[in-house]
Amino acid sequence: LDYQHVQVPFEITLWIMLASLAKIGFHLYNKLPSVVPESCLLIFVGLIMGGIIYGLNDKSPPVMDSDIFFLYLLPPIVLDAGYFMPSRPFFENIGTILLYAVVGTIWNVFGIGFSLYGICQVKAFHLQDVSLLHNLLFGSLIAAVDPVAVLAVFEEIHVNEKLHILVFGESLLNDAVTVVLYKLFRSFCEMPAIKSMDVFAGVGKFFVVGLGGVLVGLTFGMTAAFTTRFTKDIRVIEPLFVFLYSYLSYLTAEMFHLSGIVAIIACAMGMKRYVEANISLKSHTTVKYFMKMWSSVSDTLIFIFLGVSTIGENHEWNWPYICFTVIFCLIWRALGVLVLTFFVNRFHVNSITSKDQFIIAYGGLRGAICFSLVFLLPDFRRKKLFIAATTVVILFTVFVQGMTIRPLVDLLAVKRKRESAPTVGEQIHIRFLDHLLAGIEDISGHWGQYYWKDKLEYFNSKYLQKILLREYDQPKSSIVLLYEKLERKHAIELAEAGQLGHAPSHPSLLNNDRTVITDKKLEDTLNPDVLENIQEILARNLYRIRRTGPAYNRHTLPGETEPVEHAKEILILRHKSL
Amino acid sequence: LDYQHVQVPFEITLWIMLASLAKIGFHLYNKLPSVVPESCLLIFVGLIMGGIIYGLNDKSPPVMDSDIFFLYLLPPIVLDAGYFMPSRPFFENIGTILLYAVVGTIWNVFGIGFSLYGICQVKAFHLQDVSLLHNLLFGSLIAAVDPVAVLAVFEEIHVNEKLHILVFGESLLNDAVTVVLYKLFRSFCEMPAIKSMDVFAGVGKFFVVGLGGVLVGLTFGMTAAFTTRFTKDIRVIEPLFVFLYSYLSYLTAEMFHLSGIVAIIACAMGMKRYVEANISLKSHTTVKYFMKMWSSVSDTLIFIFLGVSTIGENHEWNWPYICFTVIFCLIWRALGVLVLTFFVNRFHVNSITSKDQFIIAYGGLRGAICFSLVFLLPDFRRKKLFIAATTVVILFTVFVQGMTIRPLVDLLAVKRKRESAPTVGEQIHIRFLDHLLAGIEDISGHWGQYYWKDKLEYFNSKYLQKILLREYDQPKSSIVLLYEKLERKHAIELAEAGQLGHAPSHPSLLNNDRTVITDKKLEDTLNPDVLENIQEILARNLYRIRRTGPAYNRHTLPGETEPVEHAKEILILRHKSL
Repeated sequence: LDYQHVQVPFEITLWIMLASLAKIGFHLYNKLPSVVPESCLLIFVGLIMGGIIYGLNDKSPPVMDSDIFFLYLLPPIVLDAGYFMPSRPFFENIGTILLYAVVGTIWNVFGIGFSLYGICQVKAFHLQDVSLLHNLLFGSLIAAVDPVAVLAVFEEIHVNEKLHILVFGESLLNDAVTVVLYKLFRSFCEMPAIKSMDVFAGVGKFFVVGLGGVLVGLTFGMTAAFTTRFTKDIRVIEPLFVFLYSYLSYLTAEMFHLSGIVAIIACAMGMKRYVEANISLKSHTTVKYFMKMWSSVSDTLIFIFLGVSTIGENHEWNWPYICFTVIFCLIWRALGVLVLTFFVNRFHVNSITSKDQFIIAYGGLRGAICFSLVFLLPDFRRKKLFIAATTVVILFTVFVQGMTIRPLVDLLAVKRKRESAPTVGEQIHIRFLDHLLAGIEDISGHWGQYYWKDKLEYFNSKYLQKILLREYDQPKSSIVLLYEKLERKHAIELAEAGQLGHAPSHPSLLNNDRTVITDKKLEDTLNPDVLENIQEILARNLYRIRRTGPAYNRHTLPGETEPVEHAKEILILRHKSL
Repeated sequence: LDYQHVQVPFEITLWIMLASLAKIGFHLYNKLPSVVPESCLLIFVGLIMGGIIYGLNDKSPPVMDSDIFFLYLLPPIVLDAGYFMPSRPFFENIGTILLYAVVGTIWNVFGIGFSLYGICQVKAFHLQDVSLLHNLLFGSLIAAVDPVAVLAVFEEIHVNEKLHILVFGESLLNDAVTVVLYKLFRSFCEMPAIKSMDVFAGVGKFFVVGLGGVLVGLTFGMTAAFTTRFTKDIRVIEPLFVFLYSYLSYLTAEMFHLSGIVAIIACAMGMKRYVEANISLKSHTTVKYFMKMWSSVSDTLIFIFLGVSTIGENHEWNWPYICFTVIFCLIWRALGVLVLTFFVNRFHVNSITSKDQFIIAYGGLRGAICFSLVFLLPDFRRKKLFIAATTVVILFTVFVQGMTIRPLVDLLAVKRKRESAPTVGEQIHIRFLDHLLAGIEDISGHWGQYYWKDKLEYFNSKYLQKILLREYDQPKSSIVLLYEKLERKHAIELAEAGQLGHAPSHPSLLNNDRTVITDKKLEDTLNPDVLENIQEILARNLYRIRRTGPAYNRHTLPGETEPVEHAKEILILRHKSL
């Protein structure tokens, strides 16, 4: 028996296997997942396994290695989140999300840090040796909402799209803030004296870390899209590039101390539309499938490890500190959401209801990121206290909040996600309104959201697509091509049947007085795949028709025959005069 | 900059990226791959990279780690090979393949070992210190044909199926022999004296290593199939099990010093049909795609590393020894193939032609397995000589033989693989003949290939399918179900159209006197996917129809009304009396 030789891959495979089997096990009993979130069950499995290891070895089970978490387990989940991010609601609410992620997180960090420092001054608790800086450092790691935990819970409760994107977007983007504050306070802890210069440098770092991450991500995303232009003869390695480039973007960002999470999201969102257009359908199925599979396994492993690592002797149970941590986490988050939403609602038509605010505050789950960060702390006397407090906060949020959020959503009758996909008619109307608003903004000289979206779309079709897509010049829109193909097929059929006058292949074309097929009815008869296909064709071509079609153009007046460039010139001049 | 932190995953990702980009690069110039095999080009890239590293650092570039090769790079390739192995030609030629793999490899090992020992006795070559055992050890690692190299070359030259499976099957199955002989000689080298007992134990080990590998593989394969029975609600992790269980079978076999290659092939071939039936179509696409992708990347990495590792200073250039190694490798392989084929042809109707024999002998390429084994040798004075000789043999076989085999195949007009898939008619005839032969063998009491195949099929449908498949009781064959579905759809269409008498939906049913559609013609009009589907339905159901259909049954005489069991009883009794 030569176990040493195969130990590393064997144990990794066994852990993944355990995670997968646990997942299957839960789904065999249909009732369990509807009551308890999967994340709780997995932590529970982890706790049992940790207990067994502890009982057998009589020493603490191995804790989750922070390197393994940040380098191998987190990226697949974030990649999956970024790749399947619904971009429309995300960009529509980007301002609110950023406000929650940046200001909200800073608010929480300082709120929790200072109030815990206050608690430490109470002599009865024996905590006087915990300095303000240590409390702030602890605040910076405990304040951040965890994307993995949020995703695990919110995927099951199906709240409305806006609420989902607000909580989830915040949990993703606050990584940049957490990284900066955590590293800042950690370096402050090790410094003999803090100059005001360092504080200003810290503020500047926010922008470097966040925007740097976006830049790194977009660079790798565009390179990935460009690479897939050349894979026509070797389809089988296409999916690889999607994974390799996104992973490289994450690693590169981490290497330069930028936000890896922000980088991988920017990479995934940036490359998605180009990669999808370039690679084959089978490659795309593989990419989607593997991404989901990978993130699902990572997610499972994280929760199991979280459970396993909880068991052991590396905790210092100072209950006042721990209890106040939980309480302050809840209070400061609730206050933060209330205050920030007050400002958000003043500037938005679609205001965030108080029910939604409650769910946003209540959905601030903590998870494995805090856990990994607390283990990464430099050794000092009270590290075990921080570990204990973090563990309790995570277990409290995941178990208590995670398990009660579904009944609360039911009880408050929070607006749910619509079950059906938007109909083709709705899609067309949304696109039409987008287009109209872009035109209105353009004419009125108000450079708002739609104006920029339109400009980006123009830049995309004019430059990016030509560089990144394999076949960028489609003279006709594909809906027209499809129609032509169908017509041709019909004609061939007629010819083959000897032009049988008594057998029209499309009876509905002749008998269309029989029934009026409404939009809804048509969609009921179509299967979902066909419908999705139609919607994709519409989504991809509605802009293009407008751009190339001579019938209507935003830059030309009706009946005008001058070239587009001329009309555009006039509009640009008018802009400048405004 | 924190490079240390991300070094391991970053460098792995970069290597894979390099391999993928190299692959794309070759395929951009269409003419190159048709002249030079990809493996040669990749080794060439590796040589250049090795040269650059050597030039920059002024020390030998890192050699490929044998552990990395055996634990991470080899399994994906073997898994791919096993999963997509054409099982019919493989099992039809299993006797010949085993003869080549076992007897042929032993022949080569001892032939090369003893003749090199003869060369070492020539005083002018200064090789007297290389003992017979060391020569045999070297023979054991240099004799084995490499599956990776064979696959890379033979996939491009499209020889006929039988020839392909003979060379490829040999290269896969000789692993068991190589493992045993290599470990045997290595332990002999370290022993002070060799007892005859040890030699006998070595012979016994052949069976343990080979059959143990098969057993481990089948166990994991069946477990994998059983696991996928329960993944209905969680389709997304289905592909994972295929990979996890096959990898576990490989690692377990390696752990017990069995043949990992044999194990993973047995696992893949065993689970394939059950897993395919259990998992969803998208999962299956992902499995196939990812397997191809993974093996393709591993393959590329292996050849690049082979090139990189060649550069450096760990060689001892004793040219007589090296040249004679190449010559003996060629001579003993040619002799072995000639002698073994002589015996094979005496017992087979479909004899192996002399052209085929030449290609089998010439296609005995050496590759990365030899290379990894030679680096695993314990340190002794002449290790560098062995490394040099192995490197030269690999480069000679891959470059000279690999590049000339295609022109030779053209020149000799070796029978090629048929371009088109077998027609539905052919498939039915093949199955019918199989069935007929099984019946003849059964009645005549000759327990041949078809008899066992039939028994295995019976065991499969009676027991295995019930345990391993999710829906094992299909009362009707699926072709009947499909027909019923079509009929129902047709009826609904007619009803919806108000039973229009003038518009029959299937004009061909009424106008069938118009044209007689031949089998060939029908297939020309069907697209390949539909055809594949038809063939799969036929393949899966022809046996079953025979089993369940009352019209004809091998175990009942025409007109007989007794239950099948009764008739079987009679046949079994007759068998015993024979």
